[in-house]
Amino acid sequence: MHSLQVSLPPPPAHHYTIHVNYGALNLLPHTLHTLTPAPSQIAILADQTLANIAEQRLPALLPSSPLLIKLPSGEPTKSLHHLPHILSTLAAARLDRHAIILALGGGVIGDLAGFIAGIYLRGIRYIQLPTTLLAMVDSSVGGKTGVNLPEGKNLVGVFHQPTAVLADLDLLETLPPRERHAGFAEIIKYGIIADAALFQSIASGSPSDLAPIIARSIEIKAQIVAEDERETTGRRALLNFGHTAGHAIEAITGYHTYLHGEAIALGIRVATRLSRLTLGLSEEDERRILNALAAHHLPLHDSMLNLQALMDRLPNDKKAQGGRVRWILTRAIGQAEIVETINSNDLKEALEILHQPPSLK
Amino acid sequence: MHSLQVSLPPPPAHHYTIHVNYGALNLLPHTLHTLTPAPSQIAILADQTLANIAEQRLPALLPSSPLLIKLPSGEPTKSLHHLPHILSTLAAARLDRHAIILALGGGVIGDLAGFIAGIYLRGIRYIQLPTTLLAMVDSSVGGKTGVNLPEGKNLVGVFHQPTAVLADLDLLETLPPRERHAGFAEIIKYGIIADAALFQSIASGSPSDLAPIIARSIEIKAQIVAEDERETTGRRALLNFGHTAGHAIEAITGYHTYLHGEAIALGIRVATRLSRLTLGLSEEDERRILNALAAHHLPLHDSMLNLQALMDRLPNDKKAQGGRVRWILTRAIGQAEIVETINSNDLKEALEILHQPPSLK
Repeated sequence: MHSLQVSLPPPPAHHYTIHVNYGALNLLPHTLHTLTPAPSQIAILADQTLANIAEQRLPALLPSSPLLIKLPSGEPTKSLHHLPHILSTLAAARLDRHAIILALGGGVIGDLAGFIAGIYLRGIRYIQLPTTLLAMVDSSVGGKTGVNLPEGKNLVGVFHQPTAVLADLDLLETLPPRERHAGFAEIIKYGIIADAALFQSIASGSPSDLAPIIARSIEIKAQIVAEDERETTGRRALLNFGHTAGHAIEAITGYHTYLHGEAIALGIRVATRLSRLTLGLSEEDERRILNALAAHHLPLHDSMLNLQALMDRLPNDKKAQGGRVRWILTRAIGQAEIVETINSNDLKEALEILHQPPSLK
Repeated sequence: MHSLQVSLPPPPAHHYTIHVNYGALNLLPHTLHTLTPAPSQIAILADQTLANIAEQRLPALLPSSPLLIKLPSGEPTKSLHHLPHILSTLAAARLDRHAIILALGGGVIGDLAGFIAGIYLRGIRYIQLPTTLLAMVDSSVGGKTGVNLPEGKNLVGVFHQPTAVLADLDLLETLPPRERHAGFAEIIKYGIIADAALFQSIASGSPSDLAPIIARSIEIKAQIVAEDERETTGRRALLNFGHTAGHAIEAITGYHTYLHGEAIALGIRVATRLSRLTLGLSEEDERRILNALAAHHLPLHDSMLNLQALMDRLPNDKKAQGGRVRWILTRAIGQAEIVETINSNDLKEALEILHQPPSLK
């Protein structure tokens, strides 16, 4: 037998910069100018509702005329369906490996554009220009790119980190209030899992200056991702506080009843009650969490929810990856941990409260 | 402005084993047994002409019943077309991130299966079970996975290294002679660029024991890839000796006149003459190279070739990535280098010889 051991050295470390502020888009010329190698061509993948920015504001900031690909809004765009058209458009324009993609939109566009950048010519660079609060604090950071399959969300993709993220808070001005509130579910999550002061700063509603809030949220996510980019140590799982039940609620309601952040708010209520039952989270902290969610007009109960369907949809020992259920729970606001064993009566209670509105202070 | 510097540590180094021999498939149980974590499920992506191996021999070697996906033979399979079906089949079978894919077939199946493994759940493991000489010595090693677009070959993919490669030479018994000869074009290439002794060992035809020849070819490729996995230093480009013109010949003949290795043989003739004109390769070495190609029944000329179309298809300063043409040339059999400046008269001469059969010894 001829046997060869092949050893590939690790790929280089990846560094990038995130800028958060009102008017951050104006940093685009400088950001592009400092890239090595210089971008050979620029393609914009944009939500079609942002056509005015993609067709006018962005090109004015660019050193050369970009290739613009507009895509429909909404979750169905995040599928394999658009891939052939987008990839062929890039190839027909002869984008080479030194080209760069600008992703202008919310999480759907960011995840799809990042995936396209990850597979076109086996990977080119991309810059995230998130336009929703949720995309700014969540999907634009962390390098998880991909699309949905009919069988489930985010089942296809690559880890492909952005070259830069510019979160321009001016773009949030036109965001519908419901989407803005939904974004706060994730910010509240960051406070619960990692920063009691961040939590307190938004506990009673939205501050007038969002910049430090968003920047701190991104910082928490970026730090956790840096510790466990590819979900190998379990550390990245902490970001899933509220998401175990939240994802199941999205699935059983067909993804059209709730915005992601709204489903996460319901999931946070479940995880919070489980945290009381399992880790001894105080009743006071539970009350503070529910009040914070309510202050941002997020749903806390749904009397129509099919609890049996929800229970069936939760990962169980047989279905979960690696054979274990992992709940992310909190012992006190500002810290989180992974819990692998949950009492089934506790889980039942934590789900059943979703049928009842909480008694807020 | 709130600016964050994000630093991601490098991903871990990747190690894997390549086994080359008659009966190497029998190492599959041991190979799977030693993986950590143990594979949760096994899926086989197979060329449908290998159904007997995929349905009987392989399952008998596996610890659990595999999911089998059969795909049509031929280059059209290596496209985005089959992706939704394959990915949905994996998802419907609930393959998790500890599952593993076995790629059974030639380069088309290996490249496609590696790409599927690279994007399903953002990357799962896969083992290459190459069944053609060309796939054994070329595409199964190196981690370049992907598919073609209508606009060009290999324009979409990821770098995703296999977990193991088992090259079972028994599988070559049924290979049509033409495909076997085509595989030798790449082996001759390895000899020219890196190993004069390897070249000499196959210069007069195919030896009876292919194992050391194939193992040495793979070793050369693996070593060059380890030095430049993602084509950032230029070192990996050395593997493209004969491919600059070869790819152009494939393109202008619509990919159906020549097998890849046959087009590469013609490309090697061009690169060899350019090497004489540019680097002073000896007439004797040129003659040895042409004789070796002829000894393996590979084409050395094509009087019907449209030389103007060929010239137009070659990368030029405007079209080539990074703005430079890179020819891989040889100063003497056993060594190669990158040459960035080619005299246009030399190039014309090197292409025009394709219309004439060489005068062999």
